[in-house]
Amino acid sequence: MNIESAQATLVSLEEEVTRQTALVNELRTTNADARALDEAKKKLGELKKALALSKGAGGSKEGKKKERLLLKTAKGTRDYGPSEMHCREHIERTVKSVFSLYGGSQLDTPVFERKDILTDKYGEDAKLIFDLMDQGGEQLALRYDHTVPLARWLAMQGSAVGASGQSKIWQVGKVYRRDNPVMSKGRMREFSQADFDISGVWDPMIPDAELISLLSTILSRLDVGDFMIKINHRKILDGIFEVCGVPPEKIRTISSAVDKLDKLPWADVKKEMTDEKGLDESIADKIGEYVKLKGGPALLDQLKADETLMANKSAKQGADEMTILFTLLRAYRCLEKVSFDMSLARGLDYYTGLIYEAVVEASAPPGFKSADALAGSTSPPAPKEKKKKTPKSTDGSVEDDEEIDESQVGVGSIAAGGRYDNLVGSFLASAAGDEKKAKGGLPCVGVSIGLDRVFAIVWPKWVERGTRTKDTVVYVMSAGDGLLEERIALVRELREAGITADFLAKAKPKLPAQFLAGEKDEVPFAVILGGDELRQGLVTVKEQKWEMVPGQGKTKIESADKGTQVKRSELIDWLKTREGWKAWQGGEF
Amino acid sequence: MNIESAQATLVSLEEEVTRQTALVNELRTTNADARALDEAKKKLGELKKALALSKGAGGSKEGKKKERLLLKTAKGTRDYGPSEMHCREHIERTVKSVFSLYGGSQLDTPVFERKDILTDKYGEDAKLIFDLMDQGGEQLALRYDHTVPLARWLAMQGSAVGASGQSKIWQVGKVYRRDNPVMSKGRMREFSQADFDISGVWDPMIPDAELISLLSTILSRLDVGDFMIKINHRKILDGIFEVCGVPPEKIRTISSAVDKLDKLPWADVKKEMTDEKGLDESIADKIGEYVKLKGGPALLDQLKADETLMANKSAKQGADEMTILFTLLRAYRCLEKVSFDMSLARGLDYYTGLIYEAVVEASAPPGFKSADALAGSTSPPAPKEKKKKTPKSTDGSVEDDEEIDESQVGVGSIAAGGRYDNLVGSFLASAAGDEKKAKGGLPCVGVSIGLDRVFAIVWPKWVERGTRTKDTVVYVMSAGDGLLEERIALVRELREAGITADFLAKAKPKLPAQFLAGEKDEVPFAVILGGDELRQGLVTVKEQKWEMVPGQGKTKIESADKGTQVKRSELIDWLKTREGWKAWQGGEF
Repeated sequence: MNIESAQATLVSLEEEVTRQTALVNELRTTNADARALDEAKKKLGELKKALALSKGAGGSKEGKKKERLLLKTAKGTRDYGPSEMHCREHIERTVKSVFSLYGGSQLDTPVFERKDILTDKYGEDAKLIFDLMDQGGEQLALRYDHTVPLARWLAMQGSAVGASGQSKIWQVGKVYRRDNPVMSKGRMREFSQADFDISGVWDPMIPDAELISLLSTILSRLDVGDFMIKINHRKILDGIFEVCGVPPEKIRTISSAVDKLDKLPWADVKKEMTDEKGLDESIADKIGEYVKLKGGPALLDQLKADETLMANKSAKQGADEMTILFTLLRAYRCLEKVSFDMSLARGLDYYTGLIYEAVVEASAPPGFKSADALAGSTSPPAPKEKKKKTPKSTDGSVEDDEEIDESQVGVGSIAAGGRYDNLVGSFLASAAGDEKKAKGGLPCVGVSIGLDRVFAIVWPKWVERGTRTKDTVVYVMSAGDGLLEERIALVRELREAGITADFLAKAKPKLPAQFLAGEKDEVPFAVILGGDELRQGLVTVKEQKWEMVPGQGKTKIESADKGTQVKRSELIDWLKTREGWKAWQGGEF
Repeated sequence: MNIESAQATLVSLEEEVTRQTALVNELRTTNADARALDEAKKKLGELKKALALSKGAGGSKEGKKKERLLLKTAKGTRDYGPSEMHCREHIERTVKSVFSLYGGSQLDTPVFERKDILTDKYGEDAKLIFDLMDQGGEQLALRYDHTVPLARWLAMQGSAVGASGQSKIWQVGKVYRRDNPVMSKGRMREFSQADFDISGVWDPMIPDAELISLLSTILSRLDVGDFMIKINHRKILDGIFEVCGVPPEKIRTISSAVDKLDKLPWADVKKEMTDEKGLDESIADKIGEYVKLKGGPALLDQLKADETLMANKSAKQGADEMTILFTLLRAYRCLEKVSFDMSLARGLDYYTGLIYEAVVEASAPPGFKSADALAGSTSPPAPKEKKKKTPKSTDGSVEDDEEIDESQVGVGSIAAGGRYDNLVGSFLASAAGDEKKAKGGLPCVGVSIGLDRVFAIVWPKWVERGTRTKDTVVYVMSAGDGLLEERIALVRELREAGITADFLAKAKPKLPAQFLAGEKDEVPFAVILGGDELRQGLVTVKEQKWEMVPGQGKTKIESADKGTQVKRSELIDWLKTREGWKAWQGGEF
């Protein structure tokens, strides 16, 4: 093929791709038959492949070359570079220190589990599990959350289960979901979660209140802005469904429709209940009256005055537990951070009691205040995030070529959890081959904090403020003839004294190059060695400061200071008296 | 099938399994034909399956039940429970603090990479890579080390590569290898590595010396016992092979035979060179004279006096670099921790200069001192670990049913690394589709520390010493009528002041139960609330101490102390004056 005919093929292929793309989009917006859409998408994929091949075959200006390696991370994953990791480590340290403050102990489980451990735990989301290839051993899959591995571990402890199975366990690590990612909002396929769980038989609501207090303390210490912990109780919610007349077999599916109220207006949720799930409109309307309620202890009093509802055993039990909870939250002084929100349902099936979810203002999509979804008389516009659920092919798998308009999606909740009293028992029952044991086991309550979502909120603030992202305190330089061994000797002594120190790895570097390297690290102290000075036992120290300058970012403050001569033998003690040292010690970097 | 005939089937199957197992073992010890062995093993597998099925079908005493779930972690992986994690966190914190002291910044890459990023990086070990199942997207695989993802990241930084590509990056995280695990020695399929790498064009050996100093500092601060950092130089080694007469195409394979000298006696390595790899015996003998050398700067002088060797350009360059290195290591004051060991070769192909490996006494297998493998006139017995390499089927895959005699295997090296100047360049070349660019790129030198191996050495010492594995300082109890809200209020205040505090999650617990719970956590302060006392603004504090008692383990020291009455409003200040508080602050727990 000569260049001209190759170019012609290329142009016609590009036109075909454009046409087919338009067709796919049209089928999508008109809600066409799923199979027709799949066919169209398949053809689009083939055309794109042909176009890529054609470009590689000589049509592109690069000419014939070996197939290029794509230098990128896997879809839905990202690297965290050095400055970002400084921020992430700060977040993790904050979370871990509060976990420890509350008497927690750490657990670490493998990143992958035997597949059957994860089976039947996640309902319809199970298709989002990452499987490992069968390489002649066990069937393995990447963990989907920390809760199921924890329950597996608790079940394996044997004697520790039962009265002595009381523990406070925390975990920090990555979990994996083959969902469609929204990277800028911290919604990824590989993401970090920090979990804290309390297991064991305790008096009602005490561990539950401890967890709400823990979450409130952590969110107050992280720089996420104002936050609210929405709480609800599965037993009250189930009681409401029963009282409204939802048939028992539809309770979980109607509950999962209610769960969408933080993203969809009531009209859409009602439509799902009636049109998709075949619920009577009158029943849906009754549910609507309940789930629009939100408030604090006063709402609980209102429910307790509802005689029809309180005649329901499940609702009554839930209301009694909420009464205890509010008393305890008052003792923990975190009542004002909690909103009793009847629209909160949580997706996971395994919750059996209190459920909760933390939201921050920054986590809502633009122009969409989730907390107000039901408050006004007019429904807010549905966010485009809805589409997240639609791009699935007929076999239920998630495709890799879909794009989400990230500007229309919020960070979502940044933490969530609840009580799950039967999960450990179900492992014990499966291991014994006796499903009847499922109701025994170990009651648990836990919370997961989405660290990437927290990072997505906190990191822009660090950038804006010009927060320092490195801890180096001293840069050792030479003004004279290299003095490499002398620089190394001083750096070694500083490090031994616990002072982060560095130097330029050149034998005879020029002084300006050394200052430049130290400034890159925003080092507060430049220590300059000179041959004559050293023989007199002296070094020169120059203190450096930075400030944020609008339009220029972080800028070194120019100073007329020519430096201070300090005895080399007294340098470490001298440094520790300086303001720059104390600021660094106090974490103000 | 009735019970009796089922039992008969079971017994005969069990006999067959026993016979077949004996056959497999015989074939293995007699070094039989690989195919015959594979056939026998395959039949053994089928028999075992039939036996398992037969047991499940009613032959076992459990009778007919649903198939049981195996509650276990995947092969070669393990959970780290709360006490163990306390020790692991201590190890990680120590390593990270030294990384920071040396001016490093953290990088975090995803646990899985696009498969083609890992391709052609690990030579024959590539078959040990864990692949993810193709679920309709990219081909993915779990990372095998931190070095290749780092090189991928460095290559992606674009402008940062070249003169400005100078960085000190550290990574701590899990990596994955489908090797045969030896769990008790910290050799696992999922394991944690802590890496520190210096990239960029610098003056010779300065970053290399910085890394040796870093490794020496870390190992001194960890509780691993006496250690030694073996160093060698690929250019000297390659020069020796050339001078001894090894044909150029055999240099890498002969190098990888030399690499086995820490596990095998010279006679076995020589046999591999001559019998398997077709090297002249006289050449092998010449190599043997060189690789038995070990020492310090004096050995370097000896090599530099070797005119034949110094006539080789590669060896000369390596020797010059080692001269600079020894000068710098003297300035770093870590020369005495370094052994110049000509038998060190390192397996990975990508090393181009200095290589090193840290060993501790505890890391050698019993009765086998790796450092002396060549020193004596008689060869030590070959450790059984050799078998690790043999159990492979003819298709090269690793099987899951092989067992290694763990008592015969040492921990191995606990850290290793070296200079790899071409890896980033090879990524840039592949991405540009131009292999000629491979020699450009970014020189790097790095070290990996095996955290599970460090844990395997340190943890038994923690257990022996009864090191405390939790940080809780205060346990708040009530002597009176529950006082739940009062306990919560005090716990909240203590935590707010940064004091780790806990209480029993019961409404009206008995005092002995509360003491028991506090003692489980080895809490140094028991704070007891009483109704009358509280009204007077007082609380009672009892200080508690523990000691190791031979044969009994950690035991509370009985004391006649009835406790001290302290003003509730002054409790926090009072606690901070106590010895138990200072001991905890000082890390002596």
